[in-house]
Amino acid sequence: MTVTFERNAIKPALGKDYTAIAAEVAQTLAQTVQSREAQAGVPVDEIQCLRQAGLLPLIVPQEYGGLGATWPQAMAAVKTLAERDSSAAQLYSYHLLLSATPQVSGHPAQAERYYRETAADQLFWANAINVRDLRLTLEPDGSQFRASGIKSFCTGAVVADRIICAAMQAGNSLPVLFVLPSDRPGLTYNHDWDALGQRRTASGSFTFEQVQVLPEEILGPPTRPEGAFATFLGVIGMAALTYTLLGIATGALQTAQGYTRSQTRPWLTAGVDHASQDPYILRRYGDLWGQLQGAIATADQATAQMQQAWEQGDNLTHSQRGEAAIAVATAKTLATQVGLTITSDMFELMGARATANIYGFDRYWRNLRTLTLHDPTDYKLRDLGDWVLNGQPPIASPYA
Amino acid sequence: MTVTFERNAIKPALGKDYTAIAAEVAQTLAQTVQSREAQAGVPVDEIQCLRQAGLLPLIVPQEYGGLGATWPQAMAAVKTLAERDSSAAQLYSYHLLLSATPQVSGHPAQAERYYRETAADQLFWANAINVRDLRLTLEPDGSQFRASGIKSFCTGAVVADRIICAAMQAGNSLPVLFVLPSDRPGLTYNHDWDALGQRRTASGSFTFEQVQVLPEEILGPPTRPEGAFATFLGVIGMAALTYTLLGIATGALQTAQGYTRSQTRPWLTAGVDHASQDPYILRRYGDLWGQLQGAIATADQATAQMQQAWEQGDNLTHSQRGEAAIAVATAKTLATQVGLTITSDMFELMGARATANIYGFDRYWRNLRTLTLHDPTDYKLRDLGDWVLNGQPPIASPYA
Amino acid sequence: MTVTFERNAIKPALGKDYTAIAAEVAQTLAQTVQSREAQAGVPVDEIQCLRQAGLLPLIVPQEYGGLGATWPQAMAAVKTLAERDSSAAQLYSYHLLLSATPQVSGHPAQAERYYRETAADQLFWANAINVRDLRLTLEPDGSQFRASGIKSFCTGAVVADRIICAAMQAGNSLPVLFVLPSDRPGLTYNHDWDALGQRRTASGSFTFEQVQVLPEEILGPPTRPEGAFATFLGVIGMAALTYTLLGIATGALQTAQGYTRSQTRPWLTAGVDHASQDPYILRRYGDLWGQLQGAIATADQATAQMQQAWEQGDNLTHSQRGEAAIAVATAKTLATQVGLTITSDMFELMGARATANIYGFDRYWRNLRTLTLHDPTDYKLRDLGDWVLNGQPPIASPYA
Amino acid sequence: MTVTFERNAIKPALGKDYTAIAAEVAQTLAQTVQSREAQAGVPVDEIQCLRQAGLLPLIVPQEYGGLGATWPQAMAAVKTLAERDSSAAQLYSYHLLLSATPQVSGHPAQAERYYRETAADQLFWANAINVRDLRLTLEPDGSQFRASGIKSFCTGAVVADRIICAAMQAGNSLPVLFVLPSDRPGLTYNHDWDALGQRRTASGSFTFEQVQVLPEEILGPPTRPEGAFATFLGVIGMAALTYTLLGIATGALQTAQGYTRSQTRPWLTAGVDHASQDPYILRRYGDLWGQLQGAIATADQATAQMQQAWEQGDNLTHSQRGEAAIAVATAKTLATQVGLTITSDMFELMGARATANIYGFDRYWRNLRTLTLHDPTDYKLRDLGDWVLNGQPPIASPYA
Repeated sequence: MTVTFERNAIKPALGKDYTAIAAEVAQTLAQTVQSREAQAGVPVDEIQCLRQAGLLPLIVPQEYGGLGATWPQAMAAVKTLAERDSSAAQLYSYHLLLSATPQVSGHPAQAERYYRETAADQLFWANAINVRDLRLTLEPDGSQFRASGIKSFCTGAVVADRIICAAMQAGNSLPVLFVLPSDRPGLTYNHDWDALGQRRTASGSFTFEQVQVLPEEILGPPTRPEGAFATFLGVIGMAALTYTLLGIATGALQTAQGYTRSQTRPWLTAGVDHASQDPYILRRYGDLWGQLQGAIATADQATAQMQQAWEQGDNLTHSQRGEAAIAVATAKTLATQVGLTITSDMFELMGARATANIYGFDRYWRNLRTLTLHDPTDYKLRDLGDWVLNGQPPIASPYA
Repeated sequence: MTVTFERNAIKPALGKDYTAIAAEVAQTLAQTVQSREAQAGVPVDEIQCLRQAGLLPLIVPQEYGGLGATWPQAMAAVKTLAERDSSAAQLYSYHLLLSATPQVSGHPAQAERYYRETAADQLFWANAINVRDLRLTLEPDGSQFRASGIKSFCTGAVVADRIICAAMQAGNSLPVLFVLPSDRPGLTYNHDWDALGQRRTASGSFTFEQVQVLPEEILGPPTRPEGAFATFLGVIGMAALTYTLLGIATGALQTAQGYTRSQTRPWLTAGVDHASQDPYILRRYGDLWGQLQGAIATADQATAQMQQAWEQGDNLTHSQRGEAAIAVATAKTLATQVGLTITSDMFELMGARATANIYGFDRYWRNLRTLTLHDPTDYKLRDLGDWVLNGQPPIASPYA
Repeated sequence: MTVTFERNAIKPALGKDYTAIAAEVAQTLAQTVQSREAQAGVPVDEIQCLRQAGLLPLIVPQEYGGLGATWPQAMAAVKTLAERDSSAAQLYSYHLLLSATPQVSGHPAQAERYYRETAADQLFWANAINVRDLRLTLEPDGSQFRASGIKSFCTGAVVADRIICAAMQAGNSLPVLFVLPSDRPGLTYNHDWDALGQRRTASGSFTFEQVQVLPEEILGPPTRPEGAFATFLGVIGMAALTYTLLGIATGALQTAQGYTRSQTRPWLTAGVDHASQDPYILRRYGDLWGQLQGAIATADQATAQMQQAWEQGDNLTHSQRGEAAIAVATAKTLATQVGLTITSDMFELMGARATANIYGFDRYWRNLRTLTLHDPTDYKLRDLGDWVLNGQPPIASPYA
Repeated sequence: MTVTFERNAIKPALGKDYTAIAAEVAQTLAQTVQSREAQAGVPVDEIQCLRQAGLLPLIVPQEYGGLGATWPQAMAAVKTLAERDSSAAQLYSYHLLLSATPQVSGHPAQAERYYRETAADQLFWANAINVRDLRLTLEPDGSQFRASGIKSFCTGAVVADRIICAAMQAGNSLPVLFVLPSDRPGLTYNHDWDALGQRRTASGSFTFEQVQVLPEEILGPPTRPEGAFATFLGVIGMAALTYTLLGIATGALQTAQGYTRSQTRPWLTAGVDHASQDPYILRRYGDLWGQLQGAIATADQATAQMQQAWEQGDNLTHSQRGEAAIAVATAKTLATQVGLTITSDMFELMGARATANIYGFDRYWRNLRTLTLHDPTDYKLRDLGDWVLNGQPPIASPYA
């Protein structure tokens, strides 16, 4: 991939229309997405593309030099990217929520410091958090700390400027979060991400060998550690995935539409001149598109609610957090369901010749199938049910 | 049913919160809905209830003495009613769109006249329009006209103050619309509505025997007969049905929730103390509720778009009408699908004893199944598909 | 209902073709099914109809004077009845398995005695077993016993000659089964069955007031109480429900077919002359019918396997029972799923006018919805999963 | 791939148990399927494997030196292969029906000649038939003919001994079929098959440059050209695809089962020790497996019916052909639907780590998705509907 953006061309007018800028980036990435995803590897170019477009400090408040976008605006940008390049969209969506993490999990000075750095240096953020992998530990070393072990699913960390890590500490059942610069000695990416989808996210494992961690790099405590805001990243994380899924599904349907109109031949017994007049093809487009609109409308409503909750900050109540979490979880399950349907059924809209690898149309399903396994839909639905039936909000976690 | 509202007690503060008033009416109707729907018959009490609550001039502009609600507000009221009494909700939703019909299909003086009458006299509107039934004809009789024949599916006309009728005229392939007072001689309701659902809508046929029609009762021509606004009732009609469906589905799920929590026994091998902890019941609630939220979010977004289009009035373009129609049609198909699922699956959330007729829980399915046959979902989906694939807006009709 | 069979006309050639005779009975019952189900009440005529057709001793071995049908033959008869009258079919299917119960749960002499009586006196069997209702108890009374309490869901017992009852005994966690003649003093039917479907099965509760039970009326012990055959009725019970469901679904589709061809009008924009040429209607028929064929094929295969297991008698292994139970449970879940779909979707094949109560087409859904709540599908699917994933057979019970 | 069968080790006892031999071949192929499908290329080894196992003359009647298997036996072998290697299974299934084609489309002497050759020389058959591609033409050249043009989707022809071709002739709207030895000069495979699934079937295009065709190589006329048997290959072709699909789905579920039991970790909030006890995972296994059993039962029943029809030979009536075609088409649609579900949902049974390419589990979906596009399911369902609703058999074609 040859990124043609000039290095110094960071757009000045970002405040105006992030979606348009994201669309430009998406358009650029679309030129090469098929070859990049085929070769997998490390997404250096994608991050550079986002950086040059000026999109990295998107949710950094303007008072700290950022663009000050709301979460709905940010999620719209994620969806736009995902329509063309869902690996880049996942990286970017994770970046957005990680660049906001110090505000949630850190104390106010940390929030300010990292927001300012992100804006000033156009930092890209990634993570080594996966809470289901307990192999990374943190132990004191004089006035400092050392992190050792392995962490899997470190999406994009190999190309990040800052990595938020989660490690277990003796005597603490919950992991501790800390921020590392990616050039800190002892950090090694294992180049072991080879999955069927989201191939260009570099989501492999990191090995930590006695990695120095400074006390001020350990996030927290937040202003109200027991407050609902302290766990709000779980909600944003769900939204980030949701909009990536919606983008994939939208992109798939757009792709199919172009193909059906230009390439698909009417079936032998259809009795129509063009496949685009076939009654069954029309009905399927209507059905898939309608379901997709339902998921998008739900997500947009949920994200508006999430933004309201976000703006409560430390005053956010557990009940408000629960409502926002349920709204976003609902959108996530709908996006999952319609996404799986569209990315598989799109082939029935196009016909047998669309299976040729020259098109690479299976990447929509591969990407979506991979992302939707992040956490099980059945348990998301159980959470919704517990809310509806028993008024029970979901237990706060990075997944809910 | 004994309606306990006093005849003169029309609420003064209607402008404040229509939904709350609709909720009160719904609550009142809920007390007797089961027996009323069992006996079917003529919905005199329901209309009286709506009249006394002051809800009849809901969408009449304030300048003509009405409440001046927007369509989203009106649709919210419809949904609220439908949660408890979907026959009443259908009657009311049809009334709303028919009371607005002179603004769409009439000329401006007709719009003003009928709006003023509706507000001043708390008129209830119904129809004898069914465009698939061509048996009603209109022919000149001196300076006046005579309508003769039969019209089926005249929902609520037997209890209406004003009936909008559609009749065929010699030399005209499209029906002509006119407004009759319900006491006009020659109008006879045939008391032939006995269907499995929406039993209390009095949707039977009317016989017209040489019914006098005055020239000024014939609607139109509208300001711009060829304009998109002139066919806008098809869009509002879809919304009216959609919110009735959403109300039924919501009511069904609420009913199931109360029953599961209070009555359902855990299954033999479930290993839980209460049915409300059963993993499969929880998941089903989550799934059904999530789909319902998707349909509601879609409908709310569509209705907002419909309101914007409505406010264009005669300036509405065909393209804008098409977009609004597609948005509402999308919501209608989603509401249909989730409604059919919820009203049948609700029994799995409650168990075998919930089939006892003392509860009458099958009325949700019967009502929804009946209403959803208004026009075929497959053709709605084809319309959506033609829009998505070919950019083709639906052909304007009372159904689209 | 006027049953026109003559009282002495028991057919002699029954051995030849039970299905044809069942079809005749079904045809007779079809004439009056709509009015009988509307009035509910006690199914005296239905049982008389079956008795006169000679179908009661259908699975009684020929050595005891019965017709000696296999279970596949018996199930075919159940399906045939259910296509026209699913209440009668449920009564008959329960009768079949209850008339075989002494062979399974009794000792050999009881099996012989009751088989001979059934054939000689054309007995009709029903039950007061419901194992989820523990209110019926049995206690010693000298050399005899007394049964007292209430039992719900006693399908058909009010019109039975023999009733198999299950009661709790002090010191025994499992119920004891016994056979009562229906005229035994102290037995009272409470006429409290008023459900949305299967209305004509008289499935209400019985009150037992100090009812005498003779020692020889208590079933068992069977030859091998711990053997797999002793619990085989659970498997046959699943098959009985499955074929009733399949019959309802088949009848619904046949009914729809006749209506679509003769009554349904093509949709406004369909562009066809007859609804039977509508591409979406054709596709729906194909889809629903195809799914139904899948369920029927699965059931037929399962019943053949069940018959093989049955023929093992006391030599049946737990593993063989498990395999047969899983096969039948699979068929039951498929029949449930397709049945719910067909009985609701059939209306889309027919259109809005088919909701008129003159047709009573909702009875298919009401009957099937009621029957399918006998036990939860989710747990049936879990049983299948435990078999597939872990090789674990279902726990033997009246439900599995 | 190193095939370890010895070249001369053709099994003698084939008549006994084809399925066991197919299972051995499948087991052998399973060792290398992942790498072979990754590299695509030409399936030389697979055909050699089948040849050495003696499976090529499977449906050649014993009187001509073949194994004389029935179609149900042959389809069982196809499914067994497809569970492990669906490219090999497709090649083999096509071979089976093509090796029988002279009996259907040829005259009796051709049938005998080609059956004998197939058995004597262990011939492998493939095709250049695709009737939707009209670019191949046949024209007279003295007493012989010349074939020129291109034909796409020539599955396996590059490794075949005999190729059945279809070409258009001047003045004939239907294609003519002829049999070529694969070494006939002028035949060139274009090595242009690069699809997302069934990668190892070499389904690319052939170029025919003035290829000599001898008069005796042109198939037909059959004994009764207008008879139903003359088009029976369409039915067998549907069965061949059906069993390949069923094999893929079965293999996918078996693969998932092994993985869930050995690798999948229970979800954070599942409250179970092993993923194999998770209630949602159990239910999903039950649901998917149950649907699969339904499709298999339907297919087995259909294939038995197809065999009966086959045995009618030239006496087959159009009505019998129609019934067999409908039965097989039903099975094909069920196999398609459940196959798409299983091959995508299998990942929810296994979890996120199962997306690692080291497993290659996406090949089930890729293979099935590709094969199911052979012809559109919607039109198959329409055919079924026309049969059910109107009693209309499908129009005979290579697809029906």
